[in-house]
Amino acid sequence: MNDIEFIRSTLDDLAIFVRQKYAERGSVSITHKREPNDLVTEVDVAVQEQICDRIAHSFPEDIAVGEENGLNRFPDDPDARAWVIDPIDGTQNFVRGLFPSFGISLALAVGGVPVAGGVAVPGTGDLFLAERGGGAYRNGERIHVSAVDNLSLVRAEVDFSCPADRAATLRQFGELVATVGQVRCHCAAVIGLCSVATGDMDAYVHVSLNPWDYAAGMILVQEAGGKMTRLDGRPLNLFDGGRGVLASNGIMHEALSAVASRVKG
Amino acid sequence: MNDIEFIRSTLDDLAIFVRQKYAERGSVSITHKREPNDLVTEVDVAVQEQICDRIAHSFPEDIAVGEENGLNRFPDDPDARAWVIDPIDGTQNFVRGLFPSFGISLALAVGGVPVAGGVAVPGTGDLFLAERGGGAYRNGERIHVSAVDNLSLVRAEVDFSCPADRAATLRQFGELVATVGQVRCHCAAVIGLCSVATGDMDAYVHVSLNPWDYAAGMILVQEAGGKMTRLDGRPLNLFDGGRGVLASNGIMHEALSAVASRVKG
Repeated sequence: MNDIEFIRSTLDDLAIFVRQKYAERGSVSITHKREPNDLVTEVDVAVQEQICDRIAHSFPEDIAVGEENGLNRFPDDPDARAWVIDPIDGTQNFVRGLFPSFGISLALAVGGVPVAGGVAVPGTGDLFLAERGGGAYRNGERIHVSAVDNLSLVRAEVDFSCPADRAATLRQFGELVATVGQVRCHCAAVIGLCSVATGDMDAYVHVSLNPWDYAAGMILVQEAGGKMTRLDGRPLNLFDGGRGVLASNGIMHEALSAVASRVKG
Repeated sequence: MNDIEFIRSTLDDLAIFVRQKYAERGSVSITHKREPNDLVTEVDVAVQEQICDRIAHSFPEDIAVGEENGLNRFPDDPDARAWVIDPIDGTQNFVRGLFPSFGISLALAVGGVPVAGGVAVPGTGDLFLAERGGGAYRNGERIHVSAVDNLSLVRAEVDFSCPADRAATLRQFGELVATVGQVRCHCAAVIGLCSVATGDMDAYVHVSLNPWDYAAGMILVQEAGGKMTRLDGRPLNLFDGGRGVLASNGIMHEALSAVASRVKG
């Protein structure tokens, strides 16, 4: 099985499992990690375990990097083939939310650059897939970023994240929020990035993401014709130690970076 | 037909129409009103017309107040029975968005106080209904606000609204955004208010709403056990000329009002 087929079949199978758990979410066990807003459920843990088991079986030489259970570190060998996993991105929304704004994220990175990736949104049944140079797809149909070319019409997904990042988010993105046409916040990187890839949003910003939050979303945005960098426009490597990200439709990237990289206050 | 049965059957029928138009949204005609971010589609206009026709047929003595086509004014007689209509709340999300974050809102107000109301979310098939003193329901099942009692865990829906309100929103709600546990922004009052009524969110705030944006959501929140006032906690009448609103689970209302009524900068 090649890389993208592995991603597709893994996400297809696990989306069924997560959809079932979501239907029974009232009885899913929930704990918190560093602080009470940083939730982890039995589903996050089970999904990561199942993905890791599949990687160990199909690609025993490869490395797994993920949000849960001690896999949240960077590979020692920067050139390694690394599978980057977020079992549930948007766990808060899995636990509470009128819309199922959460997804399973799985990417393969080589040298810190995503070369294939996918996001399953179990609550809607959507499966997003992209391979380097092959375009981005939603349920088998090609997707493209928007053609919006004016800051006053930009729909920006601004991720207000956890309380620890909140003050920094307001300082960093206050001007952007004041400037753009529309602001949305679903607080799930996979949802923000898939929305840029489909052209439903024109930009996504976050002050402090981990590689597992955006590895798959990044290749989806790029293969849909968009751009993703650090906030100041510098190129982004998953394991460069940077935290802030800006994804856009490309057309607006320079203008958005100019606004999003100025810190106020 | 009594008031709540009228609301139920009207919303049921129009949700089918809107769901079909949403599936074909690529070909729906869109124009803008005061400014380019303030959209109106042929669907907004058609839905309001259909609701007004039904009101004229079933309740010929009553007044209709609505977002579109010159009905956006307050009743001359403050004690009149007034039907308050938002044909599509969240038109931007109808036009663009990964999730169907928009709804049809219909309420009956007497003396500026909602006495019955409903919200249809055509994209999910949800129908929310409430009558004064009779509880709030989602698809026939009773709903209740959350029991969250700590500001650091509050999930707040902060509506960043249109560009004209953006600077005021940041000044008014900057402290609230910095303080609460979670921030979301779907930019549709009906979605924010229904989320408070179901307990998926603990609070919803907006600096400048019109009565049609929140008339139905208000009675849903109240009948689900929550509270809705002006930002400073004063009682709210649909036609009192006020603009800011705070809806909450009730438990957190005083604490949220203290934070949301302090203007910064």
